[in-house]
Amino acid sequence: MDAIERVADVLYTDAAGLPDAIENAEILLLWDFFSTALRDAWPRARALKWVHVAAAGVDTVLFDEFRGSEVVLTNAHGFFNGPIAEFVLAHILAHDKELHENRALQRAHEWQHRETRRTAGSTALIVGTGGIGRHIARLLRAVGLEVRGAGRRTSGDDPDFGRVVSSAALAEHVGWADNVVVVAPLTTETRGMIDAGVFEAMKASAHLISVGRGPLIDEAALLEALQTGSIAAASLDVFVTEPLPAANPLWDASGVTVSAHMSGDVVGWRDGLAEQFTSNVTRWLAGAELINVVDKHLGYVARAH
Amino acid sequence: MDAIERVADVLYTDAAGLPDAIENAEILLLWDFFSTALRDAWPRARALKWVHVAAAGVDTVLFDEFRGSEVVLTNAHGFFNGPIAEFVLAHILAHDKELHENRALQRAHEWQHRETRRTAGSTALIVGTGGIGRHIARLLRAVGLEVRGAGRRTSGDDPDFGRVVSSAALAEHVGWADNVVVVAPLTTETRGMIDAGVFEAMKASAHLISVGRGPLIDEAALLEALQTGSIAAASLDVFVTEPLPAANPLWDASGVTVSAHMSGDVVGWRDGLAEQFTSNVTRWLAGAELINVVDKHLGYVARAH
Repeated sequence: MDAIERVADVLYTDAAGLPDAIENAEILLLWDFFSTALRDAWPRARALKWVHVAAAGVDTVLFDEFRGSEVVLTNAHGFFNGPIAEFVLAHILAHDKELHENRALQRAHEWQHRETRRTAGSTALIVGTGGIGRHIARLLRAVGLEVRGAGRRTSGDDPDFGRVVSSAALAEHVGWADNVVVVAPLTTETRGMIDAGVFEAMKASAHLISVGRGPLIDEAALLEALQTGSIAAASLDVFVTEPLPAANPLWDASGVTVSAHMSGDVVGWRDGLAEQFTSNVTRWLAGAELINVVDKHLGYVARAH
Repeated sequence: MDAIERVADVLYTDAAGLPDAIENAEILLLWDFFSTALRDAWPRARALKWVHVAAAGVDTVLFDEFRGSEVVLTNAHGFFNGPIAEFVLAHILAHDKELHENRALQRAHEWQHRETRRTAGSTALIVGTGGIGRHIARLLRAVGLEVRGAGRRTSGDDPDFGRVVSSAALAEHVGWADNVVVVAPLTTETRGMIDAGVFEAMKASAHLISVGRGPLIDEAALLEALQTGSIAAASLDVFVTEPLPAANPLWDASGVTVSAHMSGDVVGWRDGLAEQFTSNVTRWLAGAELINVVDKHLGYVARAH
């Protein structure tokens, strides 16, 4: 923040202090993307012109008053693309090569040769066609998977996905996929989109990879799908409630791997996010156009084309 | 084998029956690549013209009498390239993204956010510049790793590796690598090549991935390197003694993952290997040149260029 402190008055605050601190602030950098403090402090945010959320998902700040205001919203669009794509590929390969089963056998000192799956030639449906979804598509294609996207706008010749099917009709399309990667932004339309009907339509051998936001998935339906064998595996990095409560049955569900909302957080991520904000502040002070401006009605940075 | 039984007299035998069965055989298909039965049966192999080993490594059949004879040797060159490359990438990503640590935390129902490593931009030295090593190099480059090869012949502009360093001077070159992938053929020259001196020269954060033959690595030196923190991790699919004995300390060594010599064995591999042999038999009967002929002095299929 040194660079910013040289050119602006900077106040640091936690959630409790935000209502007072926001009074004269023109710019708000929101570091904790799960915080609802802005909503509570909103009536006192009279000078506010720009909010930057240091995350890709901006669902917690999209309350009606902010959405309807002139205040600009930017986010960390682009920053997590590469790391999250690698995380998704790691889980697809770990599942195909049965690395988790190998570790369980290793703990028992048990030598058990098995045949595992070829990843090249398998299929992945990527639900979410924003920057992260596109980066995932390119990486998976680079290692030989066949990919499709699922988004709001369908396409037959998308440069990254080839085919984009309608995310409003997921149940019609998931049956094609060996891997279903969920990375859509969380909006009113997408909440709970991966529901019982979608799980029923998936292959029994299917592998769900969830790296967007927990509430995109109906977790009760997911548990049921795993227990009845309607799908085979789920690699989950995000959950409806985080941290995942110790008593949640997903911890021990068959075929599930759990990680702690960390798919994009590679070494150095904090510095990288800070640089991204600093560079936008420089633009702001120079009167230039901000980058990564979120369309507050869509809930994400809209593509230029 | 149906296709072959239609055009040739076929005898099936185990190791004990080989001395009798081989008496009039012109062609031998050796399925168990660890078997030393051919060496024992060799004096009675008077009609033998061609041996096919259904594996990439032919070390067990390269005894002096066979090597000095006119009998042709072919192998499964090429067949395992893709599967093994995927297996190597799976282990590199699993290590970088700490998937194994995540599973350990999951068993304890423990939510622990951590920063993990970016894989793109990291480095991999691939020891072994044959078909499998080259396929690994291409796959790792496709996901953004920087690669080098280590082989008998050095090069500054290899199409797959860019730079190939001398495998005779590994200790001079391993310090560059975040990942060291061992996939050389096992020959007199390569046996024990990954020794204490090589481990000492590796980065403390280095990850060894072993998918060639166990005896390429000095396992005592590997254990010592892991225990003293001279390297960080080892993903081992092959061992000096297989199956790995239950009392072997590698099972529990810190940073080690063990699998049961299965890196290339994807679903359908047996059919694929059988087709590869059948297609060579067709060539043989037509008097055409065999493919995948092993240079018995080098110990592998030499490249055309």
